[in-house]
Formats: sequence, C-alpha cells, structure tokens
Amino acid sequence: MPAETPSEFDLIERYFKRTAPSALLGVGDDAAIIEPATGMQLLMSTDMLVAGTHFLPDAEPEALGWKTLAVNVSDLAAMGATPRWTLLALALPKVANEADEAWIAAFARGFFACADAFGIELIGGDTTRGPLNFCVTILGEAPAGQALLRSGARVGDDVWVSGQPGRAALGLAHLQGRCVLDDAARNECLAALHRPQPRIALGLALRNVASAAIDVSDGLLADLGHILDASHVSAEIQLDRLPTLLADGRVPEDLVRDCILAGGDDYELAFTAAAGFRPRIESLASSLQLALTRIGSIAQKGTDKLRLIDSHGQKVAVGRLGYDHFLGHK
Amino acid sequence: MPAETPSEFDLIERYFKRTAPSALLGVGDDAAIIEPATGMQLLMSTDMLVAGTHFLPDAEPEALGWKTLAVNVSDLAAMGATPRWTLLALALPKVANEADEAWIAAFARGFFACADAFGIELIGGDTTRGPLNFCVTILGEAPAGQALLRSGARVGDDVWVSGQPGRAALGLAHLQGRCVLDDAARNECLAALHRPQPRIALGLALRNVASAAIDVSDGLLADLGHILDASHVSAEIQLDRLPTLLADGRVPEDLVRDCILAGGDDYELAFTAAAGFRPRIESLASSLQLALTRIGSIAQKGTDKLRLIDSHGQKVAVGRLGYDHFLGHK
Repeated sequence: MPAETPSEFDLIERYFKRTAPSALLGVGDDAAIIEPATGMQLLMSTDMLVAGTHFLPDAEPEALGWKTLAVNVSDLAAMGATPRWTLLALALPKVANEADEAWIAAFARGFFACADAFGIELIGGDTTRGPLNFCVTILGEAPAGQALLRSGARVGDDVWVSGQPGRAALGLAHLQGRCVLDDAARNECLAALHRPQPRIALGLALRNVASAAIDVSDGLLADLGHILDASHVSAEIQLDRLPTLLADGRVPEDLVRDCILAGGDDYELAFTAAAGFRPRIESLASSLQLALTRIGSIAQKGTDKLRLIDSHGQKVAVGRLGYDHFLGHK
Repeated sequence: MPAETPSEFDLIERYFKRTAPSALLGVGDDAAIIEPATGMQLLMSTDMLVAGTHFLPDAEPEALGWKTLAVNVSDLAAMGATPRWTLLALALPKVANEADEAWIAAFARGFFACADAFGIELIGGDTTRGPLNFCVTILGEAPAGQALLRSGARVGDDVWVSGQPGRAALGLAHLQGRCVLDDAARNECLAALHRPQPRIALGLALRNVASAAIDVSDGLLADLGHILDASHVSAEIQLDRLPTLLADGRVPEDLVRDCILAGGDDYELAFTAAAGFRPRIESLASSLQLALTRIGSIAQKGTDKLRLIDSHGQKVAVGRLGYDHFLGHK
C-alpha cells in the first residue's frame, strides 16, 4: 500500500493508540479487559453519530471528535455514574490525501480532549471503510444501587433542569439563517452546539438526591416524557419558570420557546427530586456554578402526560403549541 | 407520523426489546447496568459492519443478523471468555414500506438466534437514520488472569488451527463466479460464509492450555501475524499439514491455497500451545467434535516473521506466494 494511503492499522497506531493504565488490557488484542472497583456496578451505553443525520459532512473535525464522545459521556451523567472507559468504532471513506489524514488527526484531538477532561481511557475499537459513521460505547461505574434511573419520579416531586436548554438549537437556527444572533449570543449558542458539556459533576452530586434523571438530547419535553413514561406519572410545567435564553429582542419569541421546549442537543440534565431537597439543590447550583431551575412538579398519571401552565396560570394544551408529536411515541 | 413509517422507538419496541434477566438494568434507560460475577474480569470488544464493505446490500437479512453478532462473539472466543451481554447500534435508511420492516424483523430474528445460541442478552443500543451500518459491542467474562492473549506465544510452542479455514472465502469465490463448487461443498462453504460458528466452547477449553489465541477474520497468515507481532516471535508453517478443504479437483489448487492461507471470515481460532499439551488438545478435538490441526511451530524472532515449508521440506518465501502484503503492516 503506498505511503500516502495509510491502512486502518496505521491510522489506529498514529492517532488512536494511547496507554490505558486503568484497564487490565487496552487496545491491541481481540478484546479489552477491565475490572470495576469493589462495590461498583458497571454502566454502559452506545451512541452512533452519522454524517448527514447528526452532523454536517463539513463539520469542524476537532469539535466533532469532542461531541462524539461528549454525547456518550452525557448518558452516564444522566445515570449519576463516573465515566471510565470507551470503545470507538469508526467508518471512514477512503483516506486519499493529507487533508483527509489531517481531518482524522483533528477528530482524534477533539475526542481525546473530551476523554482527558472526564478521565476516560480508550480501550478498544474498530476502524473500517464506509460512509462516515462513529459509534462510541462508554463504560462507567456507580456504587451498587445508586444509579439515577428514569423510573423513580414520584407524585409531588419537583421537576428541575440544569443550565439553559435551547442554546444548541438556537445556534443551529442561526447557522441555518432562521434567526440572527448578536456576537455574544452566537458564541454562547454555537459553543453549546459544538462543544456540549456533559453534566458529570451534577450527575454525581444528584446521587441519593434526584429521584429520576435524563439528559436532554431530543428536547426538554420529549426527554421529560421518557421520565414520565418510565415512572408512570404526569407533570405540570410552568412556562414562566423556564430558564430564559436571550435578552435579545430581535429573535422571534416563538423560535426561542421552540428551542427551549423542543430543541435537543444541549445535554443538560432534566431531573426530579422530592421537595425536601430544594435547599440542597440550590446550594449545589452555587457550588457547581451551574443554573438549576425548578420548572414544575410531578402529578398522578392522567389524561395529559404533560401540562404546560402559562403566565396567567392557565393550562395550555401541549398539542396547541405543536409539541404533541414530541410526546407521541407511547 | 403515519402508521406505515414506524419511528426508531417503534422499531426498538417491536423487534429489539427483550428482557435481560441477568442485567441489573437493560434496554430503556440512558445506560444499562451490569455486575460481573465475583472473581470475574470483564472483556469487551466492538465491531462495525458496513453495507458494501462487509456485506452486500442484498444480503439475506436473517443470516446477516446472525453474522453481525457472531463476529463479535468470535472475539470473545479468541480470548477464552464467556459472552454475556451485547449492545447494538444500527443506522438504517428510511423505513418506507412493509418490505423494509420485514427486513428488520428478519435481521432481529438472526441476531437473537445467535444471542440465544450463546446465552447473550441485549442490554442496550441505538437506532438512527443513515447508510446501513451495524455496530455491536459485546461483553463477556473470564476468571481473573485466565484470558487468552495474543502476546503469550513462546519459542517451541506448537501452532494450531481449528476447523477448516478457507471455507468462507471459497464460498465467496463461488458466489463471485471465480470457481464452481459441487452441491455439498457449496452448502458447506456458504454456511461458513453466512452463518459462522464462533468457537466459544473451544476458547473456554483452551484456558490454561493455549499460550496465545486469535480468531481468523482477516486470513490465517495475517491473523497469525498478529500473534507473532504481539509475542515477538516468528513461526514456521508446514503447508502439507494445513487442513484440506475440498476433495473436488475441479477447483484450481492455487485458489484453494489462497482461501486457506489468506481467506478471512471463517472465525476459526488460531492458537499456540506448549508441546506437552498435544494429547490434551487432541482429546479436545474429539470431545468438541471439531478438527484441531497442528500446522507448525513458534521460533525465535528472525529475518522472516513467517516461514512456509513445502512438502519437500523446502522453505517457500511468503512473498513468493504473494501473501507478504497480508503481513505488511508492521
């Protein structure tokens, strides 16, 4: 094979082979070997990112590398787990020239930047020829019985959300020309879109506090819907308690509301907790320097899975706002 | 969404949601939770299968479902591990009609047939839109320190191979019109190609017997080469000891030899073991009803990584047979 078309082995060797001191066996055999710490259970999740579906083919590769791992880390954040190890399978079109290889190098830089930020080791993977596709498996640990499930929400619990959901969707709307953001808002929203920050520290702090948790990848209402389904409850959300997104009046109010309620890709956490935990959660917000907003409460299962309450205290049918299809799969 | 275009949630619900009694938490939350048995280490591997690269787009879906999981199970066989759990991420083109859904149903049948055959539970995954792509992560267990690594081959060890490597490649050659097999050979070779049998029972029996092992996915010489690299040794292979493939004289001898030495996709095991284990390995062959053939021996690292010996006892340069590029990546 000529030097300018590196093989899959060359690519792994050059860009993805790093030592994994906490694994008993890392990259390079038929399988990796690990051992969870005593008393810890093992959590794992897998996510596939496809060019054209999850990112544009011309996406900046370093940011893409970060995001590919970050969206998986976020699944462990939502479980209250500590991320530890990852496996990366990637399909790449033919590596034809130096620009292609530079792309892979930049992707690897972003991927490992995220791995380093969260103390994660790459212990295995697969490289193959094909349409651009990344599949990450993430493994983490949590003490036996302490993982945060979707199924634990109880009637009377508060509903909380971290950060400012909607920023990533608003960044995307800006890129697509559906609105124009000023410089400060644009930077903030594009950072949320391209370099999402998985809320691992929050997830860990919510062990034994939150009754249920999920990361917001498909949109606040849709993901909250998964908690409601799994917990067999309903929820009431107060629209005027939602975290505000922009002071900038030039962006249509409807678009901002859509981004907050239905925009995915922020990887904030939505969670429920008994009212008695309010002081503890408010103090968490301050110690983590992360907004934690109480946006509603859990009620018994009823006709509506989710009720939105407007600023006049009136119920607004989810369907009337056009979000019912986000809740439609049950 | 109209009833005829099921969502990703519908598809998971219909075809991929099964209980996973041995997992603490299976499909349906942000992550699965498992706990290896006491004294066991956890082994894991991931493999991506891409349409056009690993299988033809018109592949029979039930066989494809089997093979997608089987090639991953084979990685654990090569480690001497017991397979336990799996995660499946798949990218699918738009599900447009009943034929598309029937395809998915058949794929799931084949996948679960393999899972059931090896006692594996599906505990998580991801479904997304995109060019057809399957990414499987497999998890298994082995007692601490007993996994079979590539790096354990020692000078003087015998080199063994299971079954009849080359059948899958010969089946492919038949499909591609490069040879014509008689009915019996065709059935056997196509079964090897479409429904490979991971050698889990053999891998388990080789714990504390084999010094190194690998599954033959890229070709016997290429995969043996990985053992030699990892163990820093060389090997001598006797061509006339290789398992014969066909009694049928109509297939060109060169093609048969190519299939045996360089054909991948059989998922037989190549392994090394001290000479003292010969009686035990021969008795294993009989109890497993699986051919185990001693094909050569391990020597010190030298100029040639791999030496082929012909029926006259003469060394044949690997390069002269055209296989050097299979060993070329180191």
